[in-house]
Amino acid sequence: MTEPTRHERLRLGMVGGGRDAFIGAVHRIAARIDDHYELVAGAFSSGPEKALASAADLGVARAYTSFAEMAVRESRRKDGIDAVAIVTPNHLHAPVAMQFLKRGIHVICDKPLTATLPEAKRLAKAAEAAGVVFALTHNYTGYPLVRQAKAMAAAGELGALRLVQVEYAQDWLTETVDSKQADWRTDPARSGAGGSTGDIGTHAFNLASFVTGLTLDQLAADLTAFVPGRRLDDNAHVLLRYHGGARGMLWCSQVAPGNENGLRLRLYGSKGGLEWAQEDPNRLWFSRLGQPRHMITRSGAGTGPEAARVTRLPPGHPEGYLEAFANIYTEAARAIRAVRTGTPVPEGTTFPGLKEGLEGVAFVDACVRSSARNGAWVRLAL
Amino acid sequence: MTEPTRHERLRLGMVGGGRDAFIGAVHRIAARIDDHYELVAGAFSSGPEKALASAADLGVARAYTSFAEMAVRESRRKDGIDAVAIVTPNHLHAPVAMQFLKRGIHVICDKPLTATLPEAKRLAKAAEAAGVVFALTHNYTGYPLVRQAKAMAAAGELGALRLVQVEYAQDWLTETVDSKQADWRTDPARSGAGGSTGDIGTHAFNLASFVTGLTLDQLAADLTAFVPGRRLDDNAHVLLRYHGGARGMLWCSQVAPGNENGLRLRLYGSKGGLEWAQEDPNRLWFSRLGQPRHMITRSGAGTGPEAARVTRLPPGHPEGYLEAFANIYTEAARAIRAVRTGTPVPEGTTFPGLKEGLEGVAFVDACVRSSARNGAWVRLAL
Amino acid sequence: MTEPTRHERLRLGMVGGGRDAFIGAVHRIAARIDDHYELVAGAFSSGPEKALASAADLGVARAYTSFAEMAVRESRRKDGIDAVAIVTPNHLHAPVAMQFLKRGIHVICDKPLTATLPEAKRLAKAAEAAGVVFALTHNYTGYPLVRQAKAMAAAGELGALRLVQVEYAQDWLTETVDSKQADWRTDPARSGAGGSTGDIGTHAFNLASFVTGLTLDQLAADLTAFVPGRRLDDNAHVLLRYHGGARGMLWCSQVAPGNENGLRLRLYGSKGGLEWAQEDPNRLWFSRLGQPRHMITRSGAGTGPEAARVTRLPPGHPEGYLEAFANIYTEAARAIRAVRTGTPVPEGTTFPGLKEGLEGVAFVDACVRSSARNGAWVRLAL
Amino acid sequence: MTEPTRHERLRLGMVGGGRDAFIGAVHRIAARIDDHYELVAGAFSSGPEKALASAADLGVARAYTSFAEMAVRESRRKDGIDAVAIVTPNHLHAPVAMQFLKRGIHVICDKPLTATLPEAKRLAKAAEAAGVVFALTHNYTGYPLVRQAKAMAAAGELGALRLVQVEYAQDWLTETVDSKQADWRTDPARSGAGGSTGDIGTHAFNLASFVTGLTLDQLAADLTAFVPGRRLDDNAHVLLRYHGGARGMLWCSQVAPGNENGLRLRLYGSKGGLEWAQEDPNRLWFSRLGQPRHMITRSGAGTGPEAARVTRLPPGHPEGYLEAFANIYTEAARAIRAVRTGTPVPEGTTFPGLKEGLEGVAFVDACVRSSARNGAWVRLAL
Repeated sequence: MTEPTRHERLRLGMVGGGRDAFIGAVHRIAARIDDHYELVAGAFSSGPEKALASAADLGVARAYTSFAEMAVRESRRKDGIDAVAIVTPNHLHAPVAMQFLKRGIHVICDKPLTATLPEAKRLAKAAEAAGVVFALTHNYTGYPLVRQAKAMAAAGELGALRLVQVEYAQDWLTETVDSKQADWRTDPARSGAGGSTGDIGTHAFNLASFVTGLTLDQLAADLTAFVPGRRLDDNAHVLLRYHGGARGMLWCSQVAPGNENGLRLRLYGSKGGLEWAQEDPNRLWFSRLGQPRHMITRSGAGTGPEAARVTRLPPGHPEGYLEAFANIYTEAARAIRAVRTGTPVPEGTTFPGLKEGLEGVAFVDACVRSSARNGAWVRLAL
Repeated sequence: MTEPTRHERLRLGMVGGGRDAFIGAVHRIAARIDDHYELVAGAFSSGPEKALASAADLGVARAYTSFAEMAVRESRRKDGIDAVAIVTPNHLHAPVAMQFLKRGIHVICDKPLTATLPEAKRLAKAAEAAGVVFALTHNYTGYPLVRQAKAMAAAGELGALRLVQVEYAQDWLTETVDSKQADWRTDPARSGAGGSTGDIGTHAFNLASFVTGLTLDQLAADLTAFVPGRRLDDNAHVLLRYHGGARGMLWCSQVAPGNENGLRLRLYGSKGGLEWAQEDPNRLWFSRLGQPRHMITRSGAGTGPEAARVTRLPPGHPEGYLEAFANIYTEAARAIRAVRTGTPVPEGTTFPGLKEGLEGVAFVDACVRSSARNGAWVRLAL
Repeated sequence: MTEPTRHERLRLGMVGGGRDAFIGAVHRIAARIDDHYELVAGAFSSGPEKALASAADLGVARAYTSFAEMAVRESRRKDGIDAVAIVTPNHLHAPVAMQFLKRGIHVICDKPLTATLPEAKRLAKAAEAAGVVFALTHNYTGYPLVRQAKAMAAAGELGALRLVQVEYAQDWLTETVDSKQADWRTDPARSGAGGSTGDIGTHAFNLASFVTGLTLDQLAADLTAFVPGRRLDDNAHVLLRYHGGARGMLWCSQVAPGNENGLRLRLYGSKGGLEWAQEDPNRLWFSRLGQPRHMITRSGAGTGPEAARVTRLPPGHPEGYLEAFANIYTEAARAIRAVRTGTPVPEGTTFPGLKEGLEGVAFVDACVRSSARNGAWVRLAL
Repeated sequence: MTEPTRHERLRLGMVGGGRDAFIGAVHRIAARIDDHYELVAGAFSSGPEKALASAADLGVARAYTSFAEMAVRESRRKDGIDAVAIVTPNHLHAPVAMQFLKRGIHVICDKPLTATLPEAKRLAKAAEAAGVVFALTHNYTGYPLVRQAKAMAAAGELGALRLVQVEYAQDWLTETVDSKQADWRTDPARSGAGGSTGDIGTHAFNLASFVTGLTLDQLAADLTAFVPGRRLDDNAHVLLRYHGGARGMLWCSQVAPGNENGLRLRLYGSKGGLEWAQEDPNRLWFSRLGQPRHMITRSGAGTGPEAARVTRLPPGHPEGYLEAFANIYTEAARAIRAVRTGTPVPEGTTFPGLKEGLEGVAFVDACVRSSARNGAWVRLAL
């Protein structure tokens, strides 16, 4: 285990993530784990009272009731925030990000990038122009054995890639659910055109892209809303065709009883196969054709430097979701520090950003278009 | 454990299954396990020498070098065979079966029913007209926990069925293989229009139909032959739409390294989910929405009479592929004895036959048609 | 898969195994699977009516109401039985076996060998003198991957053996049970001095001995009868010291809720480790120190000839308890045929017999003695 | 998920945990996760240069080269540390702790409590007299499903407890290892009289005690040092007898190839069984006699408030070792804040302390005494 040398903590602000939110607390822990950030400011809710109460809960002194005001005022302080974490519903990602990035504040944004594709393109263009670091928390790419899988695929351990089987199954929307979490995720105005596709399909798609390095050529999608009255898909069956000839299937569902966060990737090539599941993330199954299956464990025999650099513990001591999430934060911190010091980003630093964000929103858009055309093959509109 | 009361053994003949064959030996063991059959005649190979040598190996006195001759002569003997097991390559199923059934000899035939759909229809018509028992060895339906799953789905334990995820993954054709088994399975003349779809996709499709009781409305298929020079699909991605609104995905592959006989079914409804895998067949996972997942074991707590009647052992003592296969033979024996004695088939007797055979061949036909039209939705041509 | 060349079937008799019995039916299926035996005679019960009714059920013409009479009369027939299967409660094993072996009839006997150690010694001496084949159905040694494990240990794949962890856990006697099976197993007069130790501890002990090839030096045992009124141990904790320095633990229990037939062996040496569990018998886990864990599958990559010769199916098609049991019958058939034909027993033929039977009874005896002395270390009284 | 209301962070010092150390970094992350502590001072190594370099690495301004000096000077500062984390080799736990606790500084100490039993008793007495909070990081008790298991056992879900099967298997000392970690752990002067028993056996013993609530009556131990030249046990087989009649087995090993941190607990009572393994910590297996096995997931259906209060994530998102460790730190923070504010410790606050520490050292002492007497039954010398 290597512990990164401590520097001054980066000053972090947060938009969203107040009382009753889920993902905000995850971001806060993730930011703390490797000690790269100190949360010093926040506009934690769109409701002013709740925004202030949440700040008090968290002991954050610089509490704002408007993210626009926060962007302005923080950018004027000498000790203003270095980066902002955006953990609002999807439709706010773009407007919030725009306020901060145009003032040179780095952005760590929850996925999907935006609720619509045109918005995603505008945001990407603006962020690139601003020259800020833009990290998108496709957190599953932070798991050490996902990094290991990517390294093995890149090293040709599977031979030529032929097959991608990826799925993300949940059950929490099997029935009509009345909660803050369910509410905005099933509302097109706040979530965008995709339901399960946007919320978890993007994770599955990103994971497959990240590990394989493949680029999608076409997809054909069959989207369904099984629960009466639901306005967005709660299940999607998607066929994939990648450039170079690999093919695949993607299944995402929020109506599959018995599944909690069943994100699972299986890859097969001309020489071998790999399997990984996020509910059992400390094991990677590798089958070289004609040999017994190997169980590669996190930090165990057979793991390489790509996994080791994002691992904290010896094998057999499980790491989980928060550590993987923290890895995204830590990688982003490396990039932000590099910008601040005018030094190159340390070799190996890897985190999802605008490109992955655009692809994700384009994936949702393509799924919706294909499904509207009865599952015709369509291309990502990038 | 209940052991069926012993009767006179049924006299069984076999066509195919000589030296070097795989599935013939499986049928022979399956026929013996519950002691309902005695193998007394065979045309074990198309090569006369091998046919006779195989008979000698097996101690079968009535050895034939031609299945047509065998049908004629056995039908004339007083102690002629009651039933014939057909274990040839696919293209011979129909011609062989025709010879026997028209002489009133019951048929137990390996799947798929035939190599082509028109042939399947003719065979089905002829078999019905002949009034013989026709069992098709979709052997996975013989697993006790598959029966249990069917009973639970029928009893509404899953609520309204919404989702079918079924797959059958192998790796033995990942590279070009030179063997008798691989040879005919990758030859359109002997296998039919489907490669992996015919060989294992039919099993997956049948398993899903058997357990759910659903009827397919449409499918959309993306078939591929990944290995250079291969003439039939070795991988298929299929989207499913069932009558009544359920949707599904079917994946079959013979090029997925690390997979041996990975047949796996997952079903989800409005109230619960079920998962079963043939490589771990003594466990059935049942999740009622809002409750912890239950591990139902073969013969264990929570299993009902549908499973118990095809189980031989107490829980914790694994049964496997041969016992499941034997269950098909035993169920067929019950039907054959009923015909012989003019009594009703015992209640609960369940085995796949012509209907399932027709559906399977139509499934392959539809996959090939859909794939030829770039994955358009098509209906089974039944 | 190789199917043994068929010979004339051996004529088999059975003592015990009538209506309501469990293990008799298992023996009958095991005898049929590879087609080496035909059951032609039986004294299926000590009650005359039940004995005859059971024979009728099974279609066995030569039905006896006394095993002694059966031994006499069968030995006088020209077509008398070649071998007898003894599936009675433990206390009858010796008296029944004596009747048959002294008339030159081969014996296949359920375990443990006898109910008492002196009886075991007398029986072993008599059987050796008679020159008959004596097979004891420690059936778990028939599993292909148990054979594989033995071969790997013998080949030094684990280095010097240091540790044996073996257990057999059940739950069916967690409460007072009123059944034929429970009845005699908890009765010292019929079961012998050991309860769980005799019924399943002997299997665990035998399995460890078989795979490791080690000989026990001493044991220390803590036996308990947890259920009020139970006269024999239903749980045992045993420490093991083997000759050569290896040490181990053996746990057997019939009062461990959630365990069905949890027989599990783990071995560790200076270079590697092996794990196998009978509820998941088609997988063997092998860890070479400093390498990822390998999952060796039955018939899959990494298996050798010792496993292949007792396997019927390709990898991924599960074999189970009955096939393993059948392997003992088939190995015994090879030995019996060798005796009949005066030829050497085929190389590789392996089945448990008198030596293993004596060790098993001595193990129970030692456990009881040690426990009576508050867990003092004792040696097997062989 | 509930996030504890933020207060001023507690000021934390650390003794040990400099460069090359393992557990120090774990403590630091654990202290950060819930944001209760700020590390402000440290004597990170016994070597002055390394001590200062480590402090610089970590950005800790108050760097000491002597723990005694640190205790004196911190106790005199107005902003001196509230608590000290002791992460040295075992033999230093007592001398370090004494310096701090006598100055009213709360102690969070790694296990085992001390290297010898007399030392442990003196320390316990001193700590009680000082009235400080003393937390011992038996971190596995921080896992949510361990809390759940304890709650279920206490609620009688297992009926009367009969059996404890607990084990902790590793393989990292299978051969002679030359590392800082291995060095002190195999040195009696620094580790104490126990090798594997002290390092991991204490964890196993503590886990069983924590979950069951049982008190040990007697144990019988067979300790071995398998690796030539090793001075402390690297493997231990221990029989357990608890007050009230429950019995058990404990196995700990550092020479079991293929095992990383295989801590596993199985409990059986008159009505049910529970199984939990730290390498798969988000699942708890519960078997009620006569019902199918239930898989209880962390935060999932069937979990109660005792687990929920130490959980951060929804089900299906794995938590791991660091989160469990953080729970100990957070529980200790609750107790420390209560002392500081003179308020009662919040209900439900649970963490191991002096009592568990004493029992652990007494457990090692008893194992060594019993083994020296050839496995005689001995009592803990408390």
